[in-house]
Amino acid sequence: MILSIIFLIFSLLPSSSYAAVQDFCVADLSGPESPAGFNCKKPETLTVKDFVYSGLATPANFSSLTKASVTPAFVDQFPGLNALGISIARFELAVGGVVPMHTHPAATELLVLLSGSMSAGFISSENTVYFTNLKKGDIMVFPQGLLHFAINSGGDYASGYATFSSARPGLQFLDFSLFGNELPTDILNKVTFLDAAQIKKLKAVLGGSN
Amino acid sequence: MILSIIFLIFSLLPSSSYAAVQDFCVADLSGPESPAGFNCKKPETLTVKDFVYSGLATPANFSSLTKASVTPAFVDQFPGLNALGISIARFELAVGGVVPMHTHPAATELLVLLSGSMSAGFISSENTVYFTNLKKGDIMVFPQGLLHFAINSGGDYASGYATFSSARPGLQFLDFSLFGNELPTDILNKVTFLDAAQIKKLKAVLGGSN
Amino acid sequence: MILSIIFLIFSLLPSSSYAAVQDFCVADLSGPESPAGFNCKKPETLTVKDFVYSGLATPANFSSLTKASVTPAFVDQFPGLNALGISIARFELAVGGVVPMHTHPAATELLVLLSGSMSAGFISSENTVYFTNLKKGDIMVFPQGLLHFAINSGGDYASGYATFSSARPGLQFLDFSLFGNELPTDILNKVTFLDAAQIKKLKAVLGGSN
Amino acid sequence: MILSIIFLIFSLLPSSSYAAVQDFCVADLSGPESPAGFNCKKPETLTVKDFVYSGLATPANFSSLTKASVTPAFVDQFPGLNALGISIARFELAVGGVVPMHTHPAATELLVLLSGSMSAGFISSENTVYFTNLKKGDIMVFPQGLLHFAINSGGDYASGYATFSSARPGLQFLDFSLFGNELPTDILNKVTFLDAAQIKKLKAVLGGSN
Amino acid sequence: MILSIIFLIFSLLPSSSYAAVQDFCVADLSGPESPAGFNCKKPETLTVKDFVYSGLATPANFSSLTKASVTPAFVDQFPGLNALGISIARFELAVGGVVPMHTHPAATELLVLLSGSMSAGFISSENTVYFTNLKKGDIMVFPQGLLHFAINSGGDYASGYATFSSARPGLQFLDFSLFGNELPTDILNKVTFLDAAQIKKLKAVLGGSN
Amino acid sequence: MILSIIFLIFSLLPSSSYAAVQDFCVADLSGPESPAGFNCKKPETLTVKDFVYSGLATPANFSSLTKASVTPAFVDQFPGLNALGISIARFELAVGGVVPMHTHPAATELLVLLSGSMSAGFISSENTVYFTNLKKGDIMVFPQGLLHFAINSGGDYASGYATFSSARPGLQFLDFSLFGNELPTDILNKVTFLDAAQIKKLKAVLGGSN
Repeated sequence: MILSIIFLIFSLLPSSSYAAVQDFCVADLSGPESPAGFNCKKPETLTVKDFVYSGLATPANFSSLTKASVTPAFVDQFPGLNALGISIARFELAVGGVVPMHTHPAATELLVLLSGSMSAGFISSENTVYFTNLKKGDIMVFPQGLLHFAINSGGDYASGYATFSSARPGLQFLDFSLFGNELPTDILNKVTFLDAAQIKKLKAVLGGSN
Repeated sequence: MILSIIFLIFSLLPSSSYAAVQDFCVADLSGPESPAGFNCKKPETLTVKDFVYSGLATPANFSSLTKASVTPAFVDQFPGLNALGISIARFELAVGGVVPMHTHPAATELLVLLSGSMSAGFISSENTVYFTNLKKGDIMVFPQGLLHFAINSGGDYASGYATFSSARPGLQFLDFSLFGNELPTDILNKVTFLDAAQIKKLKAVLGGSN
Repeated sequence: MILSIIFLIFSLLPSSSYAAVQDFCVADLSGPESPAGFNCKKPETLTVKDFVYSGLATPANFSSLTKASVTPAFVDQFPGLNALGISIARFELAVGGVVPMHTHPAATELLVLLSGSMSAGFISSENTVYFTNLKKGDIMVFPQGLLHFAINSGGDYASGYATFSSARPGLQFLDFSLFGNELPTDILNKVTFLDAAQIKKLKAVLGGSN
Repeated sequence: MILSIIFLIFSLLPSSSYAAVQDFCVADLSGPESPAGFNCKKPETLTVKDFVYSGLATPANFSSLTKASVTPAFVDQFPGLNALGISIARFELAVGGVVPMHTHPAATELLVLLSGSMSAGFISSENTVYFTNLKKGDIMVFPQGLLHFAINSGGDYASGYATFSSARPGLQFLDFSLFGNELPTDILNKVTFLDAAQIKKLKAVLGGSN
Repeated sequence: MILSIIFLIFSLLPSSSYAAVQDFCVADLSGPESPAGFNCKKPETLTVKDFVYSGLATPANFSSLTKASVTPAFVDQFPGLNALGISIARFELAVGGVVPMHTHPAATELLVLLSGSMSAGFISSENTVYFTNLKKGDIMVFPQGLLHFAINSGGDYASGYATFSSARPGLQFLDFSLFGNELPTDILNKVTFLDAAQIKKLKAVLGGSN
Repeated sequence: MILSIIFLIFSLLPSSSYAAVQDFCVADLSGPESPAGFNCKKPETLTVKDFVYSGLATPANFSSLTKASVTPAFVDQFPGLNALGISIARFELAVGGVVPMHTHPAATELLVLLSGSMSAGFISSENTVYFTNLKKGDIMVFPQGLLHFAINSGGDYASGYATFSSARPGLQFLDFSLFGNELPTDILNKVTFLDAAQIKKLKAVLGGSN
């Protein structure tokens, strides 16, 4: 009777000219992108290396200037995540380090703090601030699309991981969005109510013009 | 400390050989279509023109015969809507004008009436009619896939916008579906219970055969 | 043969103790909310009034101070939209009026300008500004979760509609998020790089503390 | 080493006061309905009977008048299907029997013909008719929301199953939608272009008024 | 007035250089695959044959050895199902025949038994067994991703159809997954607690190595 | 001009009798569950504590027998994750410790190894084994619904986090599913091809009967 399942299985396999797998869809980053993600690499070309990524083992450039580094493993770095609805990033904050106010337009973030302590918060559509101190081992969730931030306000080096509910969460840092491009100062003044002097000061630092 | 975020940001950007954006996916209408929509144009080729459409400013052909015009801005006309789950159309109805019975297989419609008055309705799966008179400023919702219609039964020109919960809502006008193709009269008679004479009369007007 | 479908239909109807419709799910706002929206009102209690809303016919309070008004028809105002993936708002801007920088965490916005002219823009995750002047009849799309804004920079009253790809798009005004709550000035200074004086000035206006 | 997994498992189980399963969500038909379906019966009350349904074994009333019967197993009849994205119905057509023109607003249909032969077709948004004769063993797909129909045009009894991509596909029979309610004849005439006499004739048969 | 809808319709059709249909997306199996399915064949090349499949009329190889056959109609065999969220397979079991323990990672299964009787069951995440005898005409649902199986434990030939809530449900037979590849015996022993001798015995039958 | 946005905002807030937030939906675990998750706690009762969880700071019972512990933070433990599409668990493996073969029916898993080394693998629907050694800092992805496992085959304590693309990923341990319940030995023998003696041996250890 055991042999019978061999035949059973064969009858279930599509003919060899057709792709047979879609348990996963490892991204072919060289090709076009559809709204649902990149096209899939052919299953027969895949190995276990397509499902493993070592790029988080070494932290990103951590300059004494920055006091922070964030190293992402999104679909662009780790094509095996394509369309699987999950990704991750490693963060490290020196004392006084900061992850500035930002949003992820396309994902909820779930953060786990592995060393040190950290102040973190987010702001809801009702303008309520959810803000607290996290200690080692705590996890905190930042719902999709809401402004959030973190500060290493403790005396120790802080590090951990941020995981996301999308293979490509998107990232909009408030300061770069406002002051790192050519959006004119007078327009910014009108739509943010920030003083023109303040705007020009930050544009100078962040590479903005106009 | 301000400078530090510059470095932070750099560490978050994927290498230049990879596409980095998917806040949006402006349709490349020249290429193939996937079940989730068209492939995305390369972000570096986009300008603000890809997100603006002026085709609704001028109404579609409005013949004295038709007494109605509908001008769509679906993904086919406005590629910037690709996969964003929304689209719009402008409608204008002369006195006595009609939007005939139809369905949108792929979207809910939300209509806003901007001038004149209008009788509009839809029919549920339980065959209940939800039918009323709309006056200027009213909005009405037609749930996905249900038969609906509108008539300018007032004494003034009526116009407004219909918005949809898909970049491509689909559109199945009942009369064209039944009488505008080669579906044989005897089959139609059996499956609609309409008289053969009635069917042939409408086929003659609407271009159907058989 | 016509009679036969009567019997056919009866066999398809569930027994009377069960709800039979889910073409739509008009919100019961008095009850609890699930992640997919409010529970449905019983179909037999519905009338066409549940699918029509007149609240946009009259603009919201339009003070000579504000120079702007926005009147929403989201699920909270118009329960018939519950879970149908669409909603709408009416906006009006006097000369110099402004819709300040904000995001919708849960929806793409598609705007149609019906009178006047307007400068509008959004900022992508790559910090690119997509900014332009809109004239009467233009439509513009703001992809989900991205910062955007509008200004009546012309000489005429400007008005139109914003439609959304969700029955409840969410709304996060940047200034209220930053300056309209108790998030401490020193934290804000660290995570936005805005000067403390600037922060305090805006907190005073917008009702923030600390 | 085997014993170790017992402890492993225990650490993964939520405490007993919480529900622990959501492999499935058998409908509690007595309670309210959310946009995603009915609330779940408590897992501890379930038995295998909740996942089996025998109601299709006996065909629905099959009158010599109707020449057709359709027996559904949607969530309303078989609560175990709640939110699982699938359902089924059994159909039987005597010689000359008909499944009249209809749509399923919320599901694609996949039909399998088990005995006899049948003419079946659907009509696309472009008004193209996809119409053919099916023989025993054939399957045919009717994409979501499109008008479709079937006729037993052969000399034998025809029967089979229709499966759906939703636990509640919805069902809008064209004739009942048009002629089985109180939608006024003159409105119908305007929005369908059918003659008033034709409309009144069918209203008389199908129970419509006005 | 009838003529007017002709003009109305024309204004709704996109210009001829654009694809106009997405009621469906028949798979172009020769091209790349996206996470949402294959790219669509051009609508103008389609005929009704793209929506009909006859491959289930003839059962798959049914060897006297196997005592079972399963013949699938997934998107790989029937491209018209692409992205429509449904598929089907025909099964036949001789007396004593078996559909061995397996999962569908990507779909719920709904089974209908057309002849004979059958024992069938599935196992939940809480390790509860839902197991019963099915008789002719019964349907049973196996929720997505859970282990399930069937045995013809009666005295008659058993057959029927399994339908799925995806155009490509995936299929992971337990025995082939464990014993039909090169996963080393000592690893298997550690992670399944099966004896090495048992593992080697089944590897020998099912083509596994190491 | 600054004051004007205060009025603008007020016009956007729903009246106080309606819930206004759905940036998130913190689970009310005391109430019923819908297919989309638990009902939402009222926004005005929430504090930052609803979005933070400290239960992973302390590892679960780690007996010298088990050589492994897994501590979950799913929606049942951390209600703030409800419907946000993400969750996490902490794992620790002593030398020789094992996470036995299992599946998550409802989520993809992304694992990050923080200390030690580990052998891990998964098996695709095509029965291909993707198996490798992970070193500290590596991440590996296990696509939804596929069998996977891990072994601490190194000489050091191994630990890390597993994150999931659902607030409730489900969990089906192969050994408990097969041998930890009352599924009869002869049925198991037929559907898994394991010897009866092997089955009885494991049933004795894992608490199964029959």
